[in-house]
Amino acid sequence: MRLSRHFLPVMKESPADAQIVSHKLMLRAGLIRQTAAGIYSWLPLGHRVLRKIEQIVREEQDRAGAIEMLMPTIQSADLWRESGRYDAYGPEMLRIKDRHDREMLFGPTNEEMITAIFRDNTRSYRDLPRILYHIQWKFRDEVRPRFGVMRGREFLMKDAYSFDLDAEGARRSYAMMFIAYLRTFTRLGLNAIPMRADTGPIGGDLSHEFIVLADTGESEVFVEQAVLDRSSINDLTGWEFSDDLGEREMAFYREHYAATDEKRDLHREQELGDQVVQRRGIEVGHIFYFGAKYSAAMGMSVQGPDGSPVVPQMGSYGIGVSRLMGAIIEASHDDAGIIWPDAVAPYHVGLINMRADDARCAGAADDLYARLEAAGVETLYDDRDERGGAKFATMDLIGLPWQIVIGPKGLDKGVVEVKRRATGEKVELSIEDAIAKVAGE
Amino acid sequence: MRLSRHFLPVMKESPADAQIVSHKLMLRAGLIRQTAAGIYSWLPLGHRVLRKIEQIVREEQDRAGAIEMLMPTIQSADLWRESGRYDAYGPEMLRIKDRHDREMLFGPTNEEMITAIFRDNTRSYRDLPRILYHIQWKFRDEVRPRFGVMRGREFLMKDAYSFDLDAEGARRSYAMMFIAYLRTFTRLGLNAIPMRADTGPIGGDLSHEFIVLADTGESEVFVEQAVLDRSSINDLTGWEFSDDLGEREMAFYREHYAATDEKRDLHREQELGDQVVQRRGIEVGHIFYFGAKYSAAMGMSVQGPDGSPVVPQMGSYGIGVSRLMGAIIEASHDDAGIIWPDAVAPYHVGLINMRADDARCAGAADDLYARLEAAGVETLYDDRDERGGAKFATMDLIGLPWQIVIGPKGLDKGVVEVKRRATGEKVELSIEDAIAKVAGE
Repeated sequence: MRLSRHFLPVMKESPADAQIVSHKLMLRAGLIRQTAAGIYSWLPLGHRVLRKIEQIVREEQDRAGAIEMLMPTIQSADLWRESGRYDAYGPEMLRIKDRHDREMLFGPTNEEMITAIFRDNTRSYRDLPRILYHIQWKFRDEVRPRFGVMRGREFLMKDAYSFDLDAEGARRSYAMMFIAYLRTFTRLGLNAIPMRADTGPIGGDLSHEFIVLADTGESEVFVEQAVLDRSSINDLTGWEFSDDLGEREMAFYREHYAATDEKRDLHREQELGDQVVQRRGIEVGHIFYFGAKYSAAMGMSVQGPDGSPVVPQMGSYGIGVSRLMGAIIEASHDDAGIIWPDAVAPYHVGLINMRADDARCAGAADDLYARLEAAGVETLYDDRDERGGAKFATMDLIGLPWQIVIGPKGLDKGVVEVKRRATGEKVELSIEDAIAKVAGE
Repeated sequence: MRLSRHFLPVMKESPADAQIVSHKLMLRAGLIRQTAAGIYSWLPLGHRVLRKIEQIVREEQDRAGAIEMLMPTIQSADLWRESGRYDAYGPEMLRIKDRHDREMLFGPTNEEMITAIFRDNTRSYRDLPRILYHIQWKFRDEVRPRFGVMRGREFLMKDAYSFDLDAEGARRSYAMMFIAYLRTFTRLGLNAIPMRADTGPIGGDLSHEFIVLADTGESEVFVEQAVLDRSSINDLTGWEFSDDLGEREMAFYREHYAATDEKRDLHREQELGDQVVQRRGIEVGHIFYFGAKYSAAMGMSVQGPDGSPVVPQMGSYGIGVSRLMGAIIEASHDDAGIIWPDAVAPYHVGLINMRADDARCAGAADDLYARLEAAGVETLYDDRDERGGAKFATMDLIGLPWQIVIGPKGLDKGVVEVKRRATGEKVELSIEDAIAKVAGE
């Protein structure tokens, strides 16, 4: 993409109302713009990152055997009366009346709707187990929306729902999602730690939050050193699913200590002494096992193998897809701007022509751009007639993994400069070697 | 995907409230379920088709140089007061009050929002021309939602917005979108004809509706034979954009007659005599040029090349992405069910094992399934222990382009049966040849 034809409005200064670093950088780097309190438009660069995060989340759900579908944003209040949550949910639910004065709402979550769909379209034990998920916009009417997409009102969530015949099966589904979550966050370049959590308004017996570590995170967490070591060395992306993989991982996190501020065990911390370290973190996922809470309330049952009715056991599994973008930036930035992990970077390479007014430089840059595109390397090409300094600052701000700089002095020597954004390391390479370097890593 | 692990609830009979064939078939084939009046959930099979339609729409927008972004569903009423449309829009706008009693709405379209974003983030003539688009859920509170996704309340729309420095540039953008639309519908396997249209509540000077021909379409259209001939022979997908391509195509449709019921020219029809034929059609796209209507009302201007302010000329360009699924089915079905065009079929091949209880058949089917998947052929594998007749009926109903049937008699001869859904043509082929046939076409 040529920057001269793009829509990438960057800002030198961040607006005064942006308090945290991810919010500041998302505004400055032209990823988002606020269109109402806690409601954002995703500008082209931000949209690309959002789609990449979404795709990784999707691939790991699919790999775990979950089936994608899509439920609407607007729901009927009657559906929520079936579970008893309509009155209980409180003012965070955006309640709506349509032109016929029917009570509707903008879904904050979908337990009721998926339970109704599954109830009305399954009959037999053979229809289970199943995990269904969707990636859809949700709305929670936060009283004080802030911190950009970290605590917005309209946000993109992946929510999955499992249906099993018995508690043992439900636990297997839960463990499968547990692994899928660890894998998802690892692929996103994040260090995410599962921590036991309260079940809150979802209800249920077993629940984990997944907390991304970031120095600028929203909340304090207390973690045993062994957990930090494990999560930073874990490469889960190569693991095959097996029956005991989930139980083994869950057992590790049960045996070792990691707790949010609300769930601290001071006695245990005292025992562990200086093995427990304090960190800051951001919640990016939450999973729940809640048994028959919704299936029983909403009258769902299937015919069991022996002909008698069985009430399915359920769980639900959420990932804040739009929130993840903020979390990734909190975890990966420096004073100059964002440092995108390769997997979610909006483009892989930023190509800078230092002298757009110089025919030789422009020709060489056009040619290199065409070759990078032909090699399948997603490239943002700064072909504008601007000062070199401003171009460097923009590239550092938007944080693409690689930068390639073409200038007259380098061309005299037959080289371009290749910079790795994360380390700042710069090397001069021939055009051939530059392409190989950015394409190969 | 194995059907035994899928979520594909098909129905023998269609519900009484489904009046048109696409609505009936979408319910019967397990593509959608209604969750409130005019609001649908997209079950896994329907979701796959929706994503494929969306992707073709996206690719053709990108090819035309439009830049994707994403605006939120919930908008502030104040934004619409800037253009004067908040009070004018009428009861189809879903109006909402948040917990602080602020007036909001679920966006039925985005002219105001994109104008505000572009206004607040551009300064110079160098920032133009641009075409920005997004694919997002919209809500229009139809008084009597019906016909399934054809006239639903929550629907997926692609809406693009062009910004140009002058009327000539705006016309170029319009012509570019005109071509992108013809190309999009051709790729979707549809015969879509552009017809002059009123601009309605969007306002403006120039407008076309794109009408898909289907015998069961919602409205009558009147078309010169030459237009039918052209649209059915046009293969636009190979065309490169050029400055005169759009003007040339627009000129053809200006010179020849094609009109919706509301825009008939009886005098012209009399002149053309039996060259005009009556057909039925479905509106799937609508494009508008409306000049400075929103940019002037909302105070947008950029600095022109000579330093004086220029008020951008705008157009907007909509495609009903979810509605297209209904239109495709209206245009392509038979008594047995849907006949998906290859480009949007949820899977390319349906593999039927006639005898799931026979180890030899199951082994051969498992093996063929693995080979099709390895060859990148999207396959739905009916591995369930059901009668052959029920499996055939389901496959015909869901309308995948190819069916491969494995049974004991064929295996004795070393063959499987390959059926093309659209024609009903069946051939017996070796496993090798069957894979080559379905993969090659």
